[in-house]
Amino acid sequence: MPRRRQIYEGKAKILYEGPEQGTVIQYFKDDATAFDGKKHEVLDGKGVLNNRISEHIMVRLAEIGVQNHFIKRLNMREQLVRRVEIIPLEVVMRNIAAGSIAKRLGLTEGDALPRPIVEFYLKDDSLGDPLVTEDHIAAFNWASPYELGDMASNAFRINDFLSGMFAAIDIQLVDFKIEFGRVYEGDAVQVIVADEISPDSCRLWDRNSKEKLDKDRFRRDLGNVIESYREVARRLGILPEDPTPLTAVED
Amino acid sequence: MPRRRQIYEGKAKILYEGPEQGTVIQYFKDDATAFDGKKHEVLDGKGVLNNRISEHIMVRLAEIGVQNHFIKRLNMREQLVRRVEIIPLEVVMRNIAAGSIAKRLGLTEGDALPRPIVEFYLKDDSLGDPLVTEDHIAAFNWASPYELGDMASNAFRINDFLSGMFAAIDIQLVDFKIEFGRVYEGDAVQVIVADEISPDSCRLWDRNSKEKLDKDRFRRDLGNVIESYREVARRLGILPEDPTPLTAVED
Repeated sequence: MPRRRQIYEGKAKILYEGPEQGTVIQYFKDDATAFDGKKHEVLDGKGVLNNRISEHIMVRLAEIGVQNHFIKRLNMREQLVRRVEIIPLEVVMRNIAAGSIAKRLGLTEGDALPRPIVEFYLKDDSLGDPLVTEDHIAAFNWASPYELGDMASNAFRINDFLSGMFAAIDIQLVDFKIEFGRVYEGDAVQVIVADEISPDSCRLWDRNSKEKLDKDRFRRDLGNVIESYREVARRLGILPEDPTPLTAVED
Repeated sequence: MPRRRQIYEGKAKILYEGPEQGTVIQYFKDDATAFDGKKHEVLDGKGVLNNRISEHIMVRLAEIGVQNHFIKRLNMREQLVRRVEIIPLEVVMRNIAAGSIAKRLGLTEGDALPRPIVEFYLKDDSLGDPLVTEDHIAAFNWASPYELGDMASNAFRINDFLSGMFAAIDIQLVDFKIEFGRVYEGDAVQVIVADEISPDSCRLWDRNSKEKLDKDRFRRDLGNVIESYREVARRLGILPEDPTPLTAVED
């Protein structure tokens, strides 16, 4: 393969220029980070699992009309995606109190919220990704009111769809983070889901045991991180029932 | 005066039952607190000044149709106000970056914001009065969408009016905090401005020298707290030009 131009390296992914105009190759690293990068580890096989899980979810979201960046998987660690202009906001949907909202609002982790809540955080590690309000977003023009409405309504749709998808495999969707990007087509601008949706960006609890099957296992040093991600993939039907070496995932 | 029943004691004010149904006596203490009560001092004369300044502002707001709780001043430290059911939100309007927004969003104190910004904070000292979003407010039903809209539009009106009032006396209105309360009249509920508007709840900078004339003098140990509050009162035409003992304020 010819040497590719790297566009961006993030904490868990690398983006390379794609083969065609408007495409990007998204490479999933094994690196896990938390607390704005203060905690870091390499978890063998995470990238492979997240590549597959994110593909699976994005494909199914496209089937219900939630536009997203996914084009096709290229190999174990890479997928071809549409090139977008990332909106500098993390959109968080929450069903159950966990993590920062529990601390912020004095809730008990595990309590159901009165209804699903959407939140926006500014993507800025140096500021600790602060919570921002719709008025902040409008004043600083991080997104237009139209884009904001679009992101929120997509987030609610995705929440309903994924809640159902995970409920079917006995997993509670506690919360998740998504990112959106702009794609330009002529004079038109469209906002689509970008980045990834995986156990790195969701809180997923086993419905019965309440065992965490997500990145909190890493954040909170609970162990068995990869085993949990693999369990999510297995229940989603991505991996064969019998644990096999991750290299066997490749097709 | 007969012994009155105390309804509530806050950090800077005490509320007593008023003489008639639906009224409350609001007593202004000299206590100054900051950082959720961690810093505390008694500043001789603060209560007298804030009683007068808040009266002055509330009366003028009523003149432009911004409904508020003020009925009449009773004495140096007390005013009669309408009894309200306080909405547990602090509504903050900002024109210039200062305080928490500068830190949160990485702005430089003193920079003009792209446009005025309204923020809502949950009134809960034990949580450090966290910033909350409109979706949090809706989900936890701290205020109805109608009340939220009403508070925001009132906050923008008050901001414009007070910006003009302070501009006329060479003071920049950097930001301010207001609170709202519900009053019930038969089946109707109305949201009106409550609490106080004073140098305790505003950031006020001298237009030329940028000298702070507000509670930041206390928070940041800048000295001359009372002198600055008195200067605001003097420029507003509440105090005579020559500094006189605060007891002379009483009419």
